[in-house]
Amino acid sequence: MPDSAYTLSCVSTECQARCGSLSTLHGTVETPVFMPVGTQATVKSLTPENLADLGAQIILGNTYHLFIRPGHELIRSFGGLHHFMHWERPILTDSGGFQIFSLQELAKITEEGAAFRSHLDGSRLFLSPEIAVHVQEALGSDIMMALDTCIPYPASHDEAARSTALTGRWARRCRNAQENTGQLLFGIVQGGMYPDLRRASLDELMDIGFDGYALGGLSVGEPKEEMEAVLGEMTRRMPETHARYLMGVGTPEDLVEGVYHGLDMFDCVLPTRNARNGMLFTSQGRLVIKNACFQHDQRPLDEHCGCYTCRHYSRAYLRHLFQSREILACQLNSIHNLHYYCALMASMRKAIREDCFLDFRRNFYDQRTFSNHEPMEDFL
Amino acid sequence: MPDSAYTLSCVSTECQARCGSLSTLHGTVETPVFMPVGTQATVKSLTPENLADLGAQIILGNTYHLFIRPGHELIRSFGGLHHFMHWERPILTDSGGFQIFSLQELAKITEEGAAFRSHLDGSRLFLSPEIAVHVQEALGSDIMMALDTCIPYPASHDEAARSTALTGRWARRCRNAQENTGQLLFGIVQGGMYPDLRRASLDELMDIGFDGYALGGLSVGEPKEEMEAVLGEMTRRMPETHARYLMGVGTPEDLVEGVYHGLDMFDCVLPTRNARNGMLFTSQGRLVIKNACFQHDQRPLDEHCGCYTCRHYSRAYLRHLFQSREILACQLNSIHNLHYYCALMASMRKAIREDCFLDFRRNFYDQRTFSNHEPMEDFL
Repeated sequence: MPDSAYTLSCVSTECQARCGSLSTLHGTVETPVFMPVGTQATVKSLTPENLADLGAQIILGNTYHLFIRPGHELIRSFGGLHHFMHWERPILTDSGGFQIFSLQELAKITEEGAAFRSHLDGSRLFLSPEIAVHVQEALGSDIMMALDTCIPYPASHDEAARSTALTGRWARRCRNAQENTGQLLFGIVQGGMYPDLRRASLDELMDIGFDGYALGGLSVGEPKEEMEAVLGEMTRRMPETHARYLMGVGTPEDLVEGVYHGLDMFDCVLPTRNARNGMLFTSQGRLVIKNACFQHDQRPLDEHCGCYTCRHYSRAYLRHLFQSREILACQLNSIHNLHYYCALMASMRKAIREDCFLDFRRNFYDQRTFSNHEPMEDFL
Repeated sequence: MPDSAYTLSCVSTECQARCGSLSTLHGTVETPVFMPVGTQATVKSLTPENLADLGAQIILGNTYHLFIRPGHELIRSFGGLHHFMHWERPILTDSGGFQIFSLQELAKITEEGAAFRSHLDGSRLFLSPEIAVHVQEALGSDIMMALDTCIPYPASHDEAARSTALTGRWARRCRNAQENTGQLLFGIVQGGMYPDLRRASLDELMDIGFDGYALGGLSVGEPKEEMEAVLGEMTRRMPETHARYLMGVGTPEDLVEGVYHGLDMFDCVLPTRNARNGMLFTSQGRLVIKNACFQHDQRPLDEHCGCYTCRHYSRAYLRHLFQSREILACQLNSIHNLHYYCALMASMRKAIREDCFLDFRRNFYDQRTFSNHEPMEDFL
């Protein structure tokens, strides 16, 4: 492997936005990139061919879920997650840390690791930094994430400091546990909303040395301004030579701001979850397909969209499927929303290469005049 | 139009099995053929491309459901059902008669037609022979079905006779109501399990003259022997020059017996409904994917199958999707089951053309040794 799997190709002269590529065992990913979430060895309702067709370069798998069911040893016996689920492009797996904290009220964190119970059958389970790495090695993902601890929002400086220090010690153990498989390993910067803790966390990870650096613990309920303050501060300090991943974020607006601040990788369940709930992203804003105004609407979801759904189906048909609770609604809506996200990233890559990212960003906001939307909260 | 849309190409020398083709506004259908059911303007969980890829030549739409939602006038405004749902091959629509009887305990049948209530919102609706034809003309299906009345099983001779006579009068009104759209119209033979009533029903329909003849009111709870007695009796009397359609039937075994008796067209929800419930059809019999024996099974569902699902996924992965209640399980299972049905029909067409249908039929039963099955009733 070269010194870094990431190759920087250009940086905006107007802001921190940048283009690059990330080399993995299953091919190269052009960044900035959005990664659809495939929690249980499937991006909900879509085939791998659907994903490739809509422009997905890389997907995310959830170590926590796969560890519990069907189990990493079963997936190893199939030659890894790629072969098990018939997806040949890169996969990033998270470490399970976030799910342990968000799904497990009774998780017990010690220096050694996290003891928790399966959300399926209540059985006792344990994840340490070493186990998290070995599970991800069994899954055979292209990019593994170090096991981290998550900080609730809000949290006191003391609480955040203790948790961040533990994340740092776990990160070192993850790096030490890693075998020579060619898989990349990213560290996760924590520190809550405290700049001093964030800086210390990043410094410690850089001292250990990872193949990429992720920002965790954002978009957890804090005001947008707080998140952007952390992004601005962090991306100025993160090494230019490595990929930067903003975990679990977010809305189309969040992606534009993340790229503006110089981040390279994003994942979120929003496009797929909202698709299943009938909320579609368009260049003009959000559209709620159940609304009566679409009953006779012969237009595609977005007249500027070239996705499979927009090429072949009307808003009226998609409304009919949704109102009839037909499974095909999930597929067609998910294809559209993920295509929207992937196309948005492709547009940003193009704007950065042409060094007109601020124009792109202004235009992105100017277009969003679609009146038929409801608050996001209705769909989550 | 020629005298008959159906062209007979060959008949078995060993039994009544036959091959032919049916010419429609959206192309020619090779018979014998199985028609996947697309109740609400979608074959559940599949795209039209999935259907074409798995070998579906023609699908069935339910007039009753489309009449209620989204409404035939809406579909007409989209240029018909084909355009609305993005399916370019032929469509057969039923008349709504069966649904009125099976979904509506309070349907009121008069000489004029059937008054019933929407199963969605309880609103009052009315379907007459004329309305059923005009609705199907609005839908733009290639093959329309005459409105019939259904006879419960068991039924007295008197009851069956009254119902069958009304079906005959309604059939004549359907033929008279039909406009010159190029759509085909099939009549439906009723008569319950009474040979004299069946014969009289067929004679009356032939006297009116239809583009094809269907057998309705079978597979409604009667013993297999009774159904086969009706099939044998009827297909010897049905005109060789027209397509013969056995409505709502059935299992793979039913299809083989139906073809043996000289029937050309079949439809049933079994392959798609069972797919969603995790019951898969294979050349060796039925397979219940949730069973623990498949947890580590790296084989495809059926090693003799060339469908998309069998080409790319293991039994273990399909079991994982099913156990995880993932939507993709519905799609992959439905693709396999419908491919199984369509491939079974293609094999029968080949056997008939090669005049070895009895060999085919014997071999079909001999292969079915798969032990991992449960009674069909568990999945309905």
